Amino acid sequence: MKFEEAKKALYDLQGKLSAYDHAVSLMYYDGATTAPKGTAENRAHSLGILTEEMYRIATSSETLELLEYLDKELNPAEAEPVETAAADEEELFRLRRMVFLMLKDVRQMQKIPMDEYVAYQELLVQADDVWHKAKEASDFPMFQPLLEKIFETQKRFAGYCAPDMLPYDYWLNEYEPGVNMEICDRFFDALRSRLVPLIHAIGTAQQVDDHFLWGDFPEYVQEKLSVYLMDLMKLDREHCGLSTTEHPFTTSLGSHLDERITTNYKRDNYTFSMYSVIHEGGHALYDTGSARDLAFTVLDGGVSMGIHESQSRFYENIIGRSRAFTSLLLPKLRELFPESMEGITADELYRAINRSEPSLIRTEADEVTYCLHVMIRYELEKRVMAGELEVKDLPQEWNRLYKEYLGIDVPDDRRGVLQDSHWSGGMIGYFPSYALGSAYGAQFLRKMKETVDVDSCLSSGDFGPINEWNRRNIWQYGSLYKPDELLDRVLQEPFDPGVYLDYLETKYRDIYRI
Amino acid sequence: MKFEEAKKALYDLQGKLSAYDHAVSLMYYDGATTAPKGTAENRAHSLGILTEEMYRIATSSETLELLEYLDKELNPAEAEPVETAAADEEELFRLRRMVFLMLKDVRQMQKIPMDEYVAYQELLVQADDVWHKAKEASDFPMFQPLLEKIFETQKRFAGYCAPDMLPYDYWLNEYEPGVNMEICDRFFDALRSRLVPLIHAIGTAQQVDDHFLWGDFPEYVQEKLSVYLMDLMKLDREHCGLSTTEHPFTTSLGSHLDERITTNYKRDNYTFSMYSVIHEGGHALYDTGSARDLAFTVLDGGVSMGIHESQSRFYENIIGRSRAFTSLLLPKLRELFPESMEGITADELYRAINRSEPSLIRTEADEVTYCLHVMIRYELEKRVMAGELEVKDLPQEWNRLYKEYLGIDVPDDRRGVLQDSHWSGGMIGYFPSYALGSAYGAQFLRKMKETVDVDSCLSSGDFGPINEWNRRNIWQYGSLYKPDELLDRVLQEPFDPGVYLDYLETKYRDIYRI
Repeated sequence: MKFEEAKKALYDLQGKLSAYDHAVSLMYYDGATTAPKGTAENRAHSLGILTEEMYRIATSSETLELLEYLDKELNPAEAEPVETAAADEEELFRLRRMVFLMLKDVRQMQKIPMDEYVAYQELLVQADDVWHKAKEASDFPMFQPLLEKIFETQKRFAGYCAPDMLPYDYWLNEYEPGVNMEICDRFFDALRSRLVPLIHAIGTAQQVDDHFLWGDFPEYVQEKLSVYLMDLMKLDREHCGLSTTEHPFTTSLGSHLDERITTNYKRDNYTFSMYSVIHEGGHALYDTGSARDLAFTVLDGGVSMGIHESQSRFYENIIGRSRAFTSLLLPKLRELFPESMEGITADELYRAINRSEPSLIRTEADEVTYCLHVMIRYELEKRVMAGELEVKDLPQEWNRLYKEYLGIDVPDDRRGVLQDSHWSGGMIGYFPSYALGSAYGAQFLRKMKETVDVDSCLSSGDFGPINEWNRRNIWQYGSLYKPDELLDRVLQEPFDPGVYLDYLETKYRDIYRI
Repeated sequence: MKFEEAKKALYDLQGKLSAYDHAVSLMYYDGATTAPKGTAENRAHSLGILTEEMYRIATSSETLELLEYLDKELNPAEAEPVETAAADEEELFRLRRMVFLMLKDVRQMQKIPMDEYVAYQELLVQADDVWHKAKEASDFPMFQPLLEKIFETQKRFAGYCAPDMLPYDYWLNEYEPGVNMEICDRFFDALRSRLVPLIHAIGTAQQVDDHFLWGDFPEYVQEKLSVYLMDLMKLDREHCGLSTTEHPFTTSLGSHLDERITTNYKRDNYTFSMYSVIHEGGHALYDTGSARDLAFTVLDGGVSMGIHESQSRFYENIIGRSRAFTSLLLPKLRELFPESMEGITADELYRAINRSEPSLIRTEADEVTYCLHVMIRYELEKRVMAGELEVKDLPQEWNRLYKEYLGIDVPDDRRGVLQDSHWSGGMIGYFPSYALGSAYGAQFLRKMKETVDVDSCLSSGDFGPINEWNRRNIWQYGSLYKPDELLDRVLQEPFDPGVYLDYLETKYRDIYRI
């Protein structure tokens, strides 16, 4: 095979896989947003078949041969003449990364027997359906057998793919390459040591009044706010759609040229949807910010869940819950919700938006208590994956840890162990990314402020320079760099959770006057 | 190959093709309902690839070998011992029909070069996008080059598939097997000879007042009416979804177990959406009424466009615009639209709903003038396909025929030649199905009335016996019988457009007291 031919075959292969990915992602998206309730079985049928087809293409001997040829050509032993001379260094770097990522995937997939892989995809479709019903009925035992199978499969697959690694380490590293339990333990210990005293201090301070955020807010008015926020964030609505769903998420369909975010409107408080739109909008900005020519390749979209959450939580909290942004928002909120916002000052809005209080639901938690929600999930996953905790005991342990860490009683599984969609989606090992991403984001902010006047951008409602900094430093690269490489490039200093903790302490000591 | 093995392989193949069909149909559905406006190019990329994959599977030598083996086994020369002894007659009949339909498709597809086939699918995605924009801008020249390519491709493909047939005959027969220009000409002549005098008589009679159907009707109230109608028609909303779109349509996703209908709300008159819901609901009842074990096979869903339209237009007009049904609806309309419906009697509603007047838009036309809209399209398609008319002259000819047949001036292409989505979707030869279907429906009604008291079902709001008759006679069979076989089985007499014309004359002479 000639190098140029192989290069074309590589792009064709990626294009083909992205079309299947489009189909599969669209079926999940449709299932979560539009599909009638009784259609999960039909979807599972099609998803099973298409996933199997994708698997066949990705692991075929033809694919492997192509990737191995390119791997050899792109990473030649020294002094050996190579056929790649025609390509420039930038292109070679890109091709190397594509081949590396694809080979890694193929070699992993080859280790998982196809029938088990397909059965697992079908299990996940079923689990999603049952989880929704179990959550509605607050009935963990309904979901338990499926969750047992999911944990069991994740352990088994980790064993196939990386027999020398602990299963949970394997999955942590999948979501955030470079991360393992040791790193997480250290990271969470650092958070715990400063967050617990901070939460305690907040708990004994004068509480913040947020009664005016509660009321009766029709969905169509909240929808107007969503559109306003998307435009404000400069999301390109020609390529980014908005739908409603049970549990908000973001997905690319085939490439970053078709992005979808979702939200969930709560009639009694518009800020839940508002911040979910900003959070998912952050994911969408990252995805859609990939360089145009990464579309239909494996480098398209974000590099890891941690970096992804660094963007979503950056927009949601660091930007979205800042004093400058909430001041900017005030006139719009007065326009949309005139009765409840009458006479409310910018300072009152800022403090209400940042009200901190131990609570039941992770996605609704304030910035300070948020990481404790994540720690609880990390703790539980770690123990189940290590065989130290049985799935059937998860609700009880969940409730015990909420009492221990946050001091609150969990009234039912709907607002407890069944609240998140991650486990039903097989995303075990994902949660730490939220906390890591939050901490990355704080350090990005410090760096950004060296060249961008973030507050004055927000005061004037111009997201341009903020987005541009993120695009130039992070978004455009898609998955071109490994997460730790990207962090090094952007920060030019080691990752330090202390920056995040400083940010939180300064912010909350001001808000609570402590 | 053993027969039992081959049988399993046949079902697996159909299952696989239905998964691809699910993906492709969902992408079109998404494009028409939810997708952001700028995503057509991304969708075209994925659709091109998946269509090519489907084509490869459907025409592979493995597929052909399987089908030819089964064809031989299922249709043995006399007295030859066959391996099929284990299968019962019903199963053999079903297998024969599957193999017949699939072989017909494969042999046809093989005649079309793959690159041309794939290019055409991509052309259709682009054409759909451009048609939407051209319609919005009322700009036919924007759409013209694409429409030229579509007509040209349809002619070329007909030439590949059936070199001995006239291209338009080929496509008519594709949508309604057994039908050709000769049959259509005769059918339309029959309609013309009695409809034109009827329309003339209506035009000179005292006109019907329908002012109370016009006003300002918010979308969310109209949506309530849609849901009420779906429930009334006994559409299973667990398996049938409702969305909004520019041009209403119905689609199955992978199988009849996931059906979607769409509608379009016009703020100034709720009856447009109301009758589009009933029309698409008729399609959906037919699809979802397939026997459960036809799911994921080529026999799933309706047999032809004519029979399909017989169901949609049966529910829309014969049921939906009947005196009994409009009386049933009156209290609901009074509840939803109290101001405009105040003091309106059942007779006034019935007559208003059936107001007849030559108009611009086919989908909004009354029952009497409707077929003239279809005739105009048939006439134009026939002439373009015969090379007697150029695509660039379509607007002018369209407008001339509207003046000639319906006596009205077409003010712009948006409400003229650009109004329908069929041509941009490559559905040339489809339109006659609407008129044929309408006529089939009237004859079905006469037959149904032999055993079902249709009016008293409607007065009591019980669609059960009506649906049950259709299910038993038509729906359950999917594509098991050819359209003309099915007609024979149901009617037990020849198809006679006179029944439809009698129905229309009786109805409209009563309404207009002529």
